[in-house]
Amino acid sequence: MKYLIVVAHGSRRQASNEEVEVLADKVAKKLPTDFSAVKVAFLELASPSIEEAIDNCYEEGASEVLIVPYFLSAGTHVATDVPNEVEKTMAKWPDKKIEIAPHIGSLDPMVDLIISVCPS
Amino acid sequence: MKYLIVVAHGSRRQASNEEVEVLADKVAKKLPTDFSAVKVAFLELASPSIEEAIDNCYEEGASEVLIVPYFLSAGTHVATDVPNEVEKTMAKWPDKKIEIAPHIGSLDPMVDLIISVCPS
Repeated sequence: MKYLIVVAHGSRRQASNEEVEVLADKVAKKLPTDFSAVKVAFLELASPSIEEAIDNCYEEGASEVLIVPYFLSAGTHVATDVPNEVEKTMAKWPDKKIEIAPHIGSLDPMVDLIISVCPS
Repeated sequence: MKYLIVVAHGSRRQASNEEVEVLADKVAKKLPTDFSAVKVAFLELASPSIEEAIDNCYEEGASEVLIVPYFLSAGTHVATDVPNEVEKTMAKWPDKKIEIAPHIGSLDPMVDLIISVCPS
């Protein structure tokens, strides 16, 4: 049973956090069949934290978690902070699998996403 | 002659700004035929500014510019700062057209972009 976690930075502005939640709901509706659920986590300023979200997945029975860093650039948050949070949490779950995908700003479909704004 | 400008926040970390430039180069290669070029601009902390980029497009002969806010959430930068910069600049170009697209975090293909990390 695989779970996806969309990890965003988190904002003091609640509407920004809700934008991520709305997006995750849309992702959930198009998820590949080998994934059971999508959760959202925030690195800071909002909850649930990455640790809380990962714990929650495994408590619900996930065997594997895939983390998607919802960040545009490969700064310290992507290179260090997110992996550190994940590693710290996984010390509690030695028998479970986890993987961190590339941050979304580095994914090839980002090119097409930008081009999608051009009127056709 | 239409130009596209990808407007990012801008970072003190030069590698983050370069990530946007690399992305814009990839966008340029897949641009619809009615667009002539893609430029990058930064709201703060890096150059060119939005004003410099817009001026540059029109100086090169653009008749229309489409701005893509490369931001994940609809915070103050998207709602106020980018439009204000655009409006201020356009006072110099009364005969030219400009449009601001929705920020990328709100675009429907973002759902598929996130799902693209799931192994198929």
